[in-house]
Amino acid sequence: MKEFNEYLQTVNDALSNLRLPEQPAGLYSPIVYTLDCGGKRLRPVLTLAACEALGADPMRSIHQAVAIEMFHNFTLLHDDVMDNADVRRGRPTVHKKWNNETAILSGDAMLTTSTMLLSVKAGDHLAQALELFNGTAMNIYEGQQLDMDFENRSDVTVEEYMEMIRLKTSVLLGCACGMGALMADAPFETQVKFFEYGVNLGLAFQLQDDYLDTYGNPETFGKAIGGDILNDKKTWLLIMAMNEDTTGTVKSLLGSTDNPAAKIEAVKSVYNSLNLPERIHELISAYVDSAIKCLDLLEISPEARTFFMDLALNSVNRDK
Amino acid sequence: MKEFNEYLQTVNDALSNLRLPEQPAGLYSPIVYTLDCGGKRLRPVLTLAACEALGADPMRSIHQAVAIEMFHNFTLLHDDVMDNADVRRGRPTVHKKWNNETAILSGDAMLTTSTMLLSVKAGDHLAQALELFNGTAMNIYEGQQLDMDFENRSDVTVEEYMEMIRLKTSVLLGCACGMGALMADAPFETQVKFFEYGVNLGLAFQLQDDYLDTYGNPETFGKAIGGDILNDKKTWLLIMAMNEDTTGTVKSLLGSTDNPAAKIEAVKSVYNSLNLPERIHELISAYVDSAIKCLDLLEISPEARTFFMDLALNSVNRDK
Repeated sequence: MKEFNEYLQTVNDALSNLRLPEQPAGLYSPIVYTLDCGGKRLRPVLTLAACEALGADPMRSIHQAVAIEMFHNFTLLHDDVMDNADVRRGRPTVHKKWNNETAILSGDAMLTTSTMLLSVKAGDHLAQALELFNGTAMNIYEGQQLDMDFENRSDVTVEEYMEMIRLKTSVLLGCACGMGALMADAPFETQVKFFEYGVNLGLAFQLQDDYLDTYGNPETFGKAIGGDILNDKKTWLLIMAMNEDTTGTVKSLLGSTDNPAAKIEAVKSVYNSLNLPERIHELISAYVDSAIKCLDLLEISPEARTFFMDLALNSVNRDK
Repeated sequence: MKEFNEYLQTVNDALSNLRLPEQPAGLYSPIVYTLDCGGKRLRPVLTLAACEALGADPMRSIHQAVAIEMFHNFTLLHDDVMDNADVRRGRPTVHKKWNNETAILSGDAMLTTSTMLLSVKAGDHLAQALELFNGTAMNIYEGQQLDMDFENRSDVTVEEYMEMIRLKTSVLLGCACGMGALMADAPFETQVKFFEYGVNLGLAFQLQDDYLDTYGNPETFGKAIGGDILNDKKTWLLIMAMNEDTTGTVKSLLGSTDNPAAKIEAVKSVYNSLNLPERIHELISAYVDSAIKCLDLLEISPEARTFFMDLALNSVNRDK
């Protein structure tokens, strides 16, 4: 096994070596711009590492790893249009820098390109790789649709929320792990177990994201704190507070926009009074434990186990 | 060989039998709505007919035929958002009936679903089917980008226009034919020849569309006549007129919106004075001839040859 940063370097090298056509520039420049974003590259690293953990050369899965990163960036591009988001990782989003038409069309091209990359040197695994990849993609669209539906509902349950984040964000981490296992010729049960590790890791990650959006350090988090509260975003924290806040404070502040700082403070103090920061961390720890239990069922080296365990533990400890 | 309408019925049956999930309805209802549009289904019919013409059971290519129709409808859905079109085949477009977010996300789901359908029972042809399909998809995005780029240019040449419509519309007809040949286990050269037939058919079709937009019968054409002229759309007719109109009438009317009927009449009379209606039909006939020449190089029955020749000849004679 290698260090996270070595896999990251391999992914970044492969991304720089992608030979996209140059013309028409209106189609391809936004793709280069999107990929040049300096993201965490967590998903392709998971693919390479899972492949190596199961005894294969990680380079056997490099095209599939890059395909998954391409797909992930496509979803961000289209989500930013749907959410009308202006900024992504400190830079203007594609539809702001160019326009909506460009963002839609370049995103479509990224989705097709990701399928093309997935097929490169997939060999006998092509049909199964496509099934995993396309099935995951459909889950992600379903998750995005539920997320949008939740904006207009005030009765979203915690169970519905967990299912939404499982679909919208976690299954792609599962897919990344399962894809590495598939490309390593691992048996189906091993692929499924690695997939489940990734899903649990993804749930822990998303809940920590929700936590950091309210409780993060503005200097390390990279974006303004309290955005979810201001947008009445139905996160685990807000849904729990809506259920348990007998003072009615949280519900009375939904839709309010006149004093953002006061709204954040008031909602946060309800969260605190309900012990939600501690309780969300208990939940995150439970998902980390589930992820680690999946590792225990895999025949991998102690070194590989440590690699994936550390990733899971870092999802709780990270502050950005 | 069967009649066009029998293949059409087979395609419509397969589309009705698609088992899309029902939830979340916000994602899947727009897909059902889009497919239920009563389109010509020319592309999937080409796939089934090419497969049968080469001696195979057309049902061997039914999933690939439906995949191509699904893909085609996905491009219409996203194009309508990009063009801000309100009506498609007499009904509100998806982004008008729902909203932009729904149109973007449902379109993405249709693209992924089309790839899934393409893979169904593709057997040994999976890798090649994907290559043909994804390569065609990239061409279509490039064509759409060129089409959008042309809106802001006044120096588009006829050669650039022909390349744009080849990419944006013709290669998908080529792909539909080539896919049928592939699924019939035909040799690569046969697939290429059938692909070329489809491309020539597509060019003839698109030029006839351009002609009908100005010269069609409003009662049979199904939409208002003169839309391309009003929108200064860079069609073959407008580009030729911009090159050859020494009176400067056409250029002086670009961008003018105050008297639509007068603009249509004035531009049309320049087209007439330059004999463009006759000249575009000479060009269409040349593409029809090229399509028929491709048929002559294929080992197909006289009956099959007649089927595909009639399709090409109809592209010139049709009035809708």
